[in-house]
Amino acid sequence: MEREVIDREFISRLRDIVGSEGILTGDDVHARNPGVFMSRIEASILVRPSTTAQVSQVLRLCHEARQPVVVQGGMSGWVRATQSRRGDLILSLERMNAIEEIDLANRTATVQAGVVLEAFQDRLEQDGLIFALDLGGRGSCQLGGNASTNAGGVRVIRYGMMREQVLGVEAVLADGRVVSSLNRMIKNNTGYDLKQLFIGSEGTLGVITRLVLRLRERPSSSNTAMVCADRFEQIAGLLRHMDGALGGQLSAFEMLDNSFYTLNTKEGRHTPPLPTDKPYYAIIEALGANQARDSELFEQALETAFERGLASDAVIARSERERDAIWAIREDLEHVVRDFRPFYAFDISVPVGAMEGYMAQVKARLAARWSAGAIAFLGHVGDGNLHIAIGAGGPEDRETVEACVYEPLAGYAGSVSAEHGIGLEKKAWFPISRSRDERFVMQIIKRALDPHSILNPGKIFDLEPAAQS
Amino acid sequence: MEREVIDREFISRLRDIVGSEGILTGDDVHARNPGVFMSRIEASILVRPSTTAQVSQVLRLCHEARQPVVVQGGMSGWVRATQSRRGDLILSLERMNAIEEIDLANRTATVQAGVVLEAFQDRLEQDGLIFALDLGGRGSCQLGGNASTNAGGVRVIRYGMMREQVLGVEAVLADGRVVSSLNRMIKNNTGYDLKQLFIGSEGTLGVITRLVLRLRERPSSSNTAMVCADRFEQIAGLLRHMDGALGGQLSAFEMLDNSFYTLNTKEGRHTPPLPTDKPYYAIIEALGANQARDSELFEQALETAFERGLASDAVIARSERERDAIWAIREDLEHVVRDFRPFYAFDISVPVGAMEGYMAQVKARLAARWSAGAIAFLGHVGDGNLHIAIGAGGPEDRETVEACVYEPLAGYAGSVSAEHGIGLEKKAWFPISRSRDERFVMQIIKRALDPHSILNPGKIFDLEPAAQS
Repeated sequence: MEREVIDREFISRLRDIVGSEGILTGDDVHARNPGVFMSRIEASILVRPSTTAQVSQVLRLCHEARQPVVVQGGMSGWVRATQSRRGDLILSLERMNAIEEIDLANRTATVQAGVVLEAFQDRLEQDGLIFALDLGGRGSCQLGGNASTNAGGVRVIRYGMMREQVLGVEAVLADGRVVSSLNRMIKNNTGYDLKQLFIGSEGTLGVITRLVLRLRERPSSSNTAMVCADRFEQIAGLLRHMDGALGGQLSAFEMLDNSFYTLNTKEGRHTPPLPTDKPYYAIIEALGANQARDSELFEQALETAFERGLASDAVIARSERERDAIWAIREDLEHVVRDFRPFYAFDISVPVGAMEGYMAQVKARLAARWSAGAIAFLGHVGDGNLHIAIGAGGPEDRETVEACVYEPLAGYAGSVSAEHGIGLEKKAWFPISRSRDERFVMQIIKRALDPHSILNPGKIFDLEPAAQS
Repeated sequence: MEREVIDREFISRLRDIVGSEGILTGDDVHARNPGVFMSRIEASILVRPSTTAQVSQVLRLCHEARQPVVVQGGMSGWVRATQSRRGDLILSLERMNAIEEIDLANRTATVQAGVVLEAFQDRLEQDGLIFALDLGGRGSCQLGGNASTNAGGVRVIRYGMMREQVLGVEAVLADGRVVSSLNRMIKNNTGYDLKQLFIGSEGTLGVITRLVLRLRERPSSSNTAMVCADRFEQIAGLLRHMDGALGGQLSAFEMLDNSFYTLNTKEGRHTPPLPTDKPYYAIIEALGANQARDSELFEQALETAFERGLASDAVIARSERERDAIWAIREDLEHVVRDFRPFYAFDISVPVGAMEGYMAQVKARLAARWSAGAIAFLGHVGDGNLHIAIGAGGPEDRETVEACVYEPLAGYAGSVSAEHGIGLEKKAWFPISRSRDERFVMQIIKRALDPHSILNPGKIFDLEPAAQS
């Protein structure tokens, strides 16, 4: 149900709750950052509460008035989960940005949802701790958004996704009820683990207002290598071998295929540290506590890998400059975005053992349709996560390109979204990864917690009339 | 709603589904292992399906007939979550005990819920992998039960609880609907993470039939030490220091108080490796990949701990025999169970920074009531988890003793159950750890997924009429 306008009396009641500084309207809303893949914010009212009590009152009002609400965070998501329609009310937690407490003995932090990830990471420097989540959007994304999208990133193989970093959640339900589950312990088996409902549900089940986050000791050593391989099974074997041989230190295992590696190392773009004729490359990183000892361990592990035929060639970074040069080949997306025209990007996951077959199938489908189509695979192999870049067809061919990537996933029980979520962008492909019964249960939960469906309606899935017991 | 009997026609319909070998009745049921703190199985019918389809058909029948169902696993739980009443139907997955697949490249296993933990661990030996969950009940507990209770154990500090080991779940809802979410990837952000509903909900939201579990590389080095301290803040500081200095290897950090240490080392019970006059002792264990190198790292880390005043004395195990001798002091519960009369045992958690204050408060409360009362604290300090042994009063004083332990938790936002769950045993104290609003949301979820409340009714909480939107 889309609304055309929000009436004045409703706005005046909102103002009573959050004050004048808590409301933006009209062009002050339309002119804000619309986010990735969105051209303009359509909604014309944005509410910025400064306390959980205000969030609760605003939602109670919206619940009674059947007013749709879209929660926005740092606007760095890739699936249009924060897209608004004309009559929507946008809720932003940007004024709730306090780091309320850092408990050193317990290694936890209590934060408000609007805290920016990077600001939080910086604050922890002085205490020798880290927050293990890290991703490209760190400068703008907010911890509440990280939780509601279950963000991933580059250290998942070692520390897990955002879900694993969250010990407690305070959330406000659609009807304004505040569910404060600000648990601070690693172990707490007292009834249902309610925080799991709010993590990764993209703002459709509740509004996260505060979080208790787990902190980790800051690693003090780092080792990085780039390896190349002639066969994919070497890559899969190398992952297992290095994980075992590094005894808990493995922090990244990133695959680059020949297409991506040569694209980024041709014409002086980056100096290729290894020959450019191998089908697979991998960047391996270990984080530990003792540089001299860990470097020895790392070299020894790589040597054993050679003896076992798990790598064809390798180079170890001998300085911070060399390490940065290796990572730059992985992180530089400028050339692929410019050379691949039109540029399509995907984020999927499949079991490691199925990865080679899946990649071949996508390539074959694409080549059958566009013989000159370009494709490159980049992967957090350790997590089963592949990012795919495609340059083929025209802008009108999006659906056909998507079909090449998503349809083969069904045969491998893969996921159409490893870390980005569903939002609106992947909604059409959602049934590939979740069965009718799974979607049915999601709808039961949605109806139970948000009976008027005011929270981010239409995101992830549409409610069907059948979802009644 | 308790039933007195199950009628013959119903039993005959059950027999049509599971066959004669799938049904036990009368004394064949009553004579089975009743489980911890339970004297006899009251129910007189037990159904043992051999497939998910059979579980589904049985539950559909029960749903239609409003027949209460209690799922039983290995019966090693401590909170009577599997206790049955006279008219209940018991569902056991003991015949669904196949390890269906071990995927070496992906490091996952697909198992049926009735597989016994130890059998699974043993099966993995040959592949150089481990299943990271380990606990005392390994010889009888089943993986389905481990999931439905979110089991913890001795390696949580390194690998997390059962929840972190589960990638996918197949579960049957109360109405027989099969929700197959057998995801095999570490990253899969496609809609709500439904498996979280079934993990830790003690059989009240669905019956887990199959699981996809995450496997890890088997560590090949091990180092163990026992340390003593004069002040609790040394213990808390030592935990942080060792975790950082061991660069990912720390796998156990167990505290013993003076009461427990002296009880187990007096009269030749175990040889005390350290003086017996210190208030706190800790066992520290690291698992890595290179024995020589890791031993050096371990010793260096302990040396630095001394320099920083984080330990008063320490002994490092130089052989497997010495390591076992250290662990035996922690694991031997025979003396405390025999000497503490009557014996009460508790499993709670509090933030590490609050632990000292909490322990003092419990001791004071107990001493105020029973001046000769005995108490000992044992802790997975790294997880905020304390096990408490008390010998005080008589068998009729259970509630008073429980009040000494549980009531002070409220002031520290602690948990009345770190790893054991609620079941019936802790139901009265559940509101200390979960607010009215949290309990309300749990009831909303329960009603949405099990509208006739046939699954393990009355466990964890009772449904209140108020839990309607």
